[in-house]
Amino acid sequence: MHLQLREEKVFKDPVHNYIHVQDEMIWSLINTAEFQRLRRIRQLGTSYLTFHGAEHSRFSHSLGVYEITRRIISQFERAHYPDWPQEEKLVALCAALLHDLGHGPFSHSIEQAFQMHHEDWTCKILLGDTEVGEVLRRHAEDFPEKVASVIRKDYEHPIVVNLVSSPLDADRMDYLLRDAYFTGVNYGTIDMDRILRMLRPFQGRIVVKESGMHAVEDYLMSRYQMYWQIYFHPVTRSSEIILRQIFRRAKELHAGGHEFRFLPEPLPGLFKRDLTVQEYLLLDEALVQTAFMQWRNESDELLSDLCSRFLNRKLYKYVEVESLDLETIDEIRAAFGRIGLHPEYDLEIDFPTDLPYDVFRPNGEFRDKQILLLDRQDQLKEISEVSDIVRSISGLHRGKYHLYYPENKLRPVMDRLPRHIAEYFEQGT
Amino acid sequence: MHLQLREEKVFKDPVHNYIHVQDEMIWSLINTAEFQRLRRIRQLGTSYLTFHGAEHSRFSHSLGVYEITRRIISQFERAHYPDWPQEEKLVALCAALLHDLGHGPFSHSIEQAFQMHHEDWTCKILLGDTEVGEVLRRHAEDFPEKVASVIRKDYEHPIVVNLVSSPLDADRMDYLLRDAYFTGVNYGTIDMDRILRMLRPFQGRIVVKESGMHAVEDYLMSRYQMYWQIYFHPVTRSSEIILRQIFRRAKELHAGGHEFRFLPEPLPGLFKRDLTVQEYLLLDEALVQTAFMQWRNESDELLSDLCSRFLNRKLYKYVEVESLDLETIDEIRAAFGRIGLHPEYDLEIDFPTDLPYDVFRPNGEFRDKQILLLDRQDQLKEISEVSDIVRSISGLHRGKYHLYYPENKLRPVMDRLPRHIAEYFEQGT
Amino acid sequence: MHLQLREEKVFKDPVHNYIHVQDEMIWSLINTAEFQRLRRIRQLGTSYLTFHGAEHSRFSHSLGVYEITRRIISQFERAHYPDWPQEEKLVALCAALLHDLGHGPFSHSIEQAFQMHHEDWTCKILLGDTEVGEVLRRHAEDFPEKVASVIRKDYEHPIVVNLVSSPLDADRMDYLLRDAYFTGVNYGTIDMDRILRMLRPFQGRIVVKESGMHAVEDYLMSRYQMYWQIYFHPVTRSSEIILRQIFRRAKELHAGGHEFRFLPEPLPGLFKRDLTVQEYLLLDEALVQTAFMQWRNESDELLSDLCSRFLNRKLYKYVEVESLDLETIDEIRAAFGRIGLHPEYDLEIDFPTDLPYDVFRPNGEFRDKQILLLDRQDQLKEISEVSDIVRSISGLHRGKYHLYYPENKLRPVMDRLPRHIAEYFEQGT
Amino acid sequence: MHLQLREEKVFKDPVHNYIHVQDEMIWSLINTAEFQRLRRIRQLGTSYLTFHGAEHSRFSHSLGVYEITRRIISQFERAHYPDWPQEEKLVALCAALLHDLGHGPFSHSIEQAFQMHHEDWTCKILLGDTEVGEVLRRHAEDFPEKVASVIRKDYEHPIVVNLVSSPLDADRMDYLLRDAYFTGVNYGTIDMDRILRMLRPFQGRIVVKESGMHAVEDYLMSRYQMYWQIYFHPVTRSSEIILRQIFRRAKELHAGGHEFRFLPEPLPGLFKRDLTVQEYLLLDEALVQTAFMQWRNESDELLSDLCSRFLNRKLYKYVEVESLDLETIDEIRAAFGRIGLHPEYDLEIDFPTDLPYDVFRPNGEFRDKQILLLDRQDQLKEISEVSDIVRSISGLHRGKYHLYYPENKLRPVMDRLPRHIAEYFEQGT
Repeated sequence: MHLQLREEKVFKDPVHNYIHVQDEMIWSLINTAEFQRLRRIRQLGTSYLTFHGAEHSRFSHSLGVYEITRRIISQFERAHYPDWPQEEKLVALCAALLHDLGHGPFSHSIEQAFQMHHEDWTCKILLGDTEVGEVLRRHAEDFPEKVASVIRKDYEHPIVVNLVSSPLDADRMDYLLRDAYFTGVNYGTIDMDRILRMLRPFQGRIVVKESGMHAVEDYLMSRYQMYWQIYFHPVTRSSEIILRQIFRRAKELHAGGHEFRFLPEPLPGLFKRDLTVQEYLLLDEALVQTAFMQWRNESDELLSDLCSRFLNRKLYKYVEVESLDLETIDEIRAAFGRIGLHPEYDLEIDFPTDLPYDVFRPNGEFRDKQILLLDRQDQLKEISEVSDIVRSISGLHRGKYHLYYPENKLRPVMDRLPRHIAEYFEQGT
Repeated sequence: MHLQLREEKVFKDPVHNYIHVQDEMIWSLINTAEFQRLRRIRQLGTSYLTFHGAEHSRFSHSLGVYEITRRIISQFERAHYPDWPQEEKLVALCAALLHDLGHGPFSHSIEQAFQMHHEDWTCKILLGDTEVGEVLRRHAEDFPEKVASVIRKDYEHPIVVNLVSSPLDADRMDYLLRDAYFTGVNYGTIDMDRILRMLRPFQGRIVVKESGMHAVEDYLMSRYQMYWQIYFHPVTRSSEIILRQIFRRAKELHAGGHEFRFLPEPLPGLFKRDLTVQEYLLLDEALVQTAFMQWRNESDELLSDLCSRFLNRKLYKYVEVESLDLETIDEIRAAFGRIGLHPEYDLEIDFPTDLPYDVFRPNGEFRDKQILLLDRQDQLKEISEVSDIVRSISGLHRGKYHLYYPENKLRPVMDRLPRHIAEYFEQGT
Repeated sequence: MHLQLREEKVFKDPVHNYIHVQDEMIWSLINTAEFQRLRRIRQLGTSYLTFHGAEHSRFSHSLGVYEITRRIISQFERAHYPDWPQEEKLVALCAALLHDLGHGPFSHSIEQAFQMHHEDWTCKILLGDTEVGEVLRRHAEDFPEKVASVIRKDYEHPIVVNLVSSPLDADRMDYLLRDAYFTGVNYGTIDMDRILRMLRPFQGRIVVKESGMHAVEDYLMSRYQMYWQIYFHPVTRSSEIILRQIFRRAKELHAGGHEFRFLPEPLPGLFKRDLTVQEYLLLDEALVQTAFMQWRNESDELLSDLCSRFLNRKLYKYVEVESLDLETIDEIRAAFGRIGLHPEYDLEIDFPTDLPYDVFRPNGEFRDKQILLLDRQDQLKEISEVSDIVRSISGLHRGKYHLYYPENKLRPVMDRLPRHIAEYFEQGT
Repeated sequence: MHLQLREEKVFKDPVHNYIHVQDEMIWSLINTAEFQRLRRIRQLGTSYLTFHGAEHSRFSHSLGVYEITRRIISQFERAHYPDWPQEEKLVALCAALLHDLGHGPFSHSIEQAFQMHHEDWTCKILLGDTEVGEVLRRHAEDFPEKVASVIRKDYEHPIVVNLVSSPLDADRMDYLLRDAYFTGVNYGTIDMDRILRMLRPFQGRIVVKESGMHAVEDYLMSRYQMYWQIYFHPVTRSSEIILRQIFRRAKELHAGGHEFRFLPEPLPGLFKRDLTVQEYLLLDEALVQTAFMQWRNESDELLSDLCSRFLNRKLYKYVEVESLDLETIDEIRAAFGRIGLHPEYDLEIDFPTDLPYDVFRPNGEFRDKQILLLDRQDQLKEISEVSDIVRSISGLHRGKYHLYYPENKLRPVMDRLPRHIAEYFEQGT
């Protein structure tokens, strides 16, 4: 049974002004231990080391995604669009609210280091013996599975999947606005109200009225700027590298039988990659930072140095390089080894192809990566067919190679590097 | 020697747009381990449990206070006001930047629980064997002591003390603007530019040109609103109570010889109140939250319940009471005891007099609590003599008694309370 | 018959983001000649001479008042409050949209100079042979009269009158926000969303849920600041004085048979105070400014000087005086006369009692001047009974006497004034 | 002699917060009759008929351009850049402040109708017997000529010309920000502070530090959006067309000896194109609107209908057409003539090539149309060489043909048009 709250509850939100909660179930979900845990996981990982305002949590982002979804659906309901299945409202709202539930601390880095996927964990939490699972089951026994299938993108009503996850979804709109607000940059100021007004449920997916094209263009341009200004900022990449190195080193040490002075639950399980859902839920950024704080006193110098670097923000410097082949990389690593630097830990390379660069890539074969415009004759057009500016953005590829290294270690021995290798590092920032 | 950076550095800041760093020393201070630690301490303690946007750190606030101070001084310099001692710029900037250095995790609660004062710790860090101390000493051997004396308010040049700490100082202006920005309320939007333009160094203190009176009125009204809307919000008070109870209980258990399963450095020292500076610097909110997470599994039920409450935001409910005498309180506690509730832990009372309510109280004997207006004849007037609205605010006293209690424990046994006592709890929020 | 538009129309608005038009009738009303005329009348009269951004028109304000009213009603409808008469929606929206229809150019000054009242003209336009009247009559023959009676405050359903005109109505909320936005001051930033959420239709009037008290306090404080910072700004008063003098002088000249070189319709009728509705609608600020431009070449020196002053912003200077009695005023005028200044035109006095100062005055006998709070027991309380801050504001009275005079005329002959009179003018701004 | 004000004056401005006036001369210039006249000329011409907030004047824009220029120069001075000639400050500030002085009412339309150029009038006003000219001559006899030569772009110091007029100048930055603010769209929110920090005087022109490239990209994208969303909005084009038709018709009538019932100075001179500077300065939007108001009663039906349309916002409708050749146009006009419509006045065509579309076109031969980046090796690069996104924008060409026509005249006779011509008009908006 689907219950309305007697009186709606609101959360004050700097981005959307108020988050409106009208359903009993949404209110209960927000008050579960698993959802409250998202307060202890930052939305932008290590970006706060570059933009000190970016200390906002996945908790606030999740509320924002829920709120945008709520506004979209409420508009669909007001307009009585026939292509919107009104009975899907609750499953859509739950999926929107809970889609990030499985994120771990410093999500991208920890996923890379331990080969995990947050979507998997989201589904495990939804389906498991958790407070969230219990609240969902109160509605219907198969309700957790329904929500999970929206997350997995195989729900029986594709329009719900498309609403929750598409190139123009509530997730992306909230994070652009929120990340812009908290970092303080003004690239992310999209006209969300206008975009929302232009969305239409149409034949199993969410499309955009053609007259909203400029607002969508502006949204895609904002994304483009946010990617290069915020998400791929080289200082942030540098801190992610340190983080990944810490995880890698600790895993190595643990595998090698090192006795950690500080290794509370569930870290051993993380290293061995056999966490239960209950253990996974113990992971948060407080724990990770506390571990790093204590590991500064571990006997392994590499680990303790990396942890100090992270906590005290003594990051690696970087140089930008136009092109780089594998041979050269090997040569640099070898040269590093010869002068007493660590060939792996003291040199990290960012390849442009590593960047999860998908500002907008509509030219795949799958329509769910596309933004479709609906014209007056009810014909659909893929946006980059119509908009020159979108076409130009979606063709762009801008990454460069970056070499990251510990300046304080390299500087004293730099003159022992072969000249043509030393040259790479002479313009470090 | 006082060095300028070759090129100024900037931090992007959502409140002041950019923080400008022009001095070598300021740059070095920001990069110390002690200053970076402020990233792990929230500006508003537990307020994020009421306003989810309030996740900003003392790091960002400290940069903001520095920036406002820099702007004030730079304006004094441009106008060549004779009463401003130009050689005091650096000591003022350092004091502004570092004034919060000694804050611990969840500062107000931990200070109450362990009778500490953050100003003392600030001075210890400035004067001790720390990175900050070292950077300051590079300038002059007695420079740390100079900065500390500004913090302690006994510096030889009172105008510097007044600049850094007064009812209209950079600290208060930054936190009003910043807390308003991150919570999302719009009460804190003061016209800082105008206030800054109106400040004048005058006979050993900072005063306000009379024509800036309205801007100051607006600033004080904003403070008034922020106090009641944000700082004294009863939900925030409730979470502070839980926090204080956790600290109290853990201290009791530790004193009683309880063997904690998790008690890393420097918590034992905290409980015994004999922390060194180095140990104190290990304290941050990550550690406190991690301890709470682990303590959920301690054998002491009271402690583990309180920790769960804090982490999962199952706070105490509250009722508002117009008046309350000590006798009645004793009676309620006794009644609680008789029905199996804990007479201390299951009932907490907020007295209006406990509130650190000083929106503005100019009528003390000390002029450093006053805001003085400078008229065209160079006469000073205390603002509440001139402004009716300020006079009305500064006379106000608005607190009420609040009773906080665990709803889930009280509800089932409520009917066993005497009627006249049960009545107090019938309207809990 | 009440028709919905097939698709809602929107206006982009800097204050409310979008103005949503959903009813056929509202759309038609906006497109009438009489409503479009409001584009040629500034919302803040001569304030643009003090705050150059304040060039916004009554057209935009009227749309804003309509939009706020629409949002209030739509919330009442969503919540199904039984005390709100749903069939009154359209009359309320029309009254909100059209309430300023009768404003003339530089409204306050022209009303004073020619003893007119804009409400009267609003009603005449509603009821007359106008496009607006025709659109309203299409709905029902007595519909214009209904809307007019809301404006006149004698409509049969007092709750509609109260919604459209009360100390916390859509009119006041829009102008605070809009005037703050366009002048650029930040005193007017009220939390409108929160206030709207707290409004309740209750027993024939609109009241505020008690928990919204702080938001109302903040609203009243904003009003207080806006009055003193914007609406009563002495430079604005000075320009209003010039304006009134121009109207007064032209009327005198016309009455005296002066042959104006430029006096197009409907100015003669205005001077004789026998304008028809059609003539009245020809009055706008373009015409007034054009007349002033041409009158700079009239033979009457007083008139031509005043017109130049207004157009070139050579306003009167002013001095502030704590107290002033009628005798002194007579004495000053006489002294002015003796040294060749005009005893009336060259000296204007602003009495504090002339100020339409009603930031909030709830202590009258009529409840429609009050803001009522609704507590949990459905009891009403007048807000100043509960809020110290409102009580303190509503008791305040702050005006001072201001003397306005042409500096360039007075300066050369100042030393011929008696010493005790000259003293008044020595500190002119 | 160049005098500083004893105390700086400020104007409150919604875009730049405060405009700071520090020089005696700037203050005097602002207070001239010619500069005050800019209050009566809207910055965006008829755009207020599309975006009702766009009622801001050239007065406020001119202050904004001055302020940005002041900030740029003050930064150049603080940094002591050797390539900035410090003695050129005053001429640059005056040129920035006065560059729009010659704009007439509804500038673009009136210039087209009467073949005038506002730059010419600006120079005539600077050099003529005007208050502005007098203030400038007080500084030095040849000072008006210096300022005029900056406007004409032939000043002896090209860096001053480049500062005041270039693809990234204070003029463009102010209007993007200001027009976005007053219309309420959020496309124009550029990071001006960052751009200003990145500007460098370098070898006779103003260039941008390479690390500011993203901010410049964002600025160009904002311009692109503003062009298509605001400046070329078809409703605005429609109102400009009406305006131009009114001017054209009135000129025709005047040439044909028509006796206007209302034709005050200086309209006859405008029609004959022999205005003196003093007459030109009488032209403002108040006069134009008043003339239109009176002309609604002229005997010429075409003129009176057009004037009513403009004042009551009964604009022409439009249809968008992909392609259109001259032959077809002739055919449509002929068909219009045959069914009693006016072949010229009842059909207007916007050719894409008519659009002053220069979002950014750097590939000309003249460097003053380019934005140059300065890299670390002090090499200059044209921005579209480096930025893919700029290259993509600067290559775009997006206009379509639009047909404008009076719907109320065409509709009743539409079925008498040949089928293939009627089809063009079936989708009118």
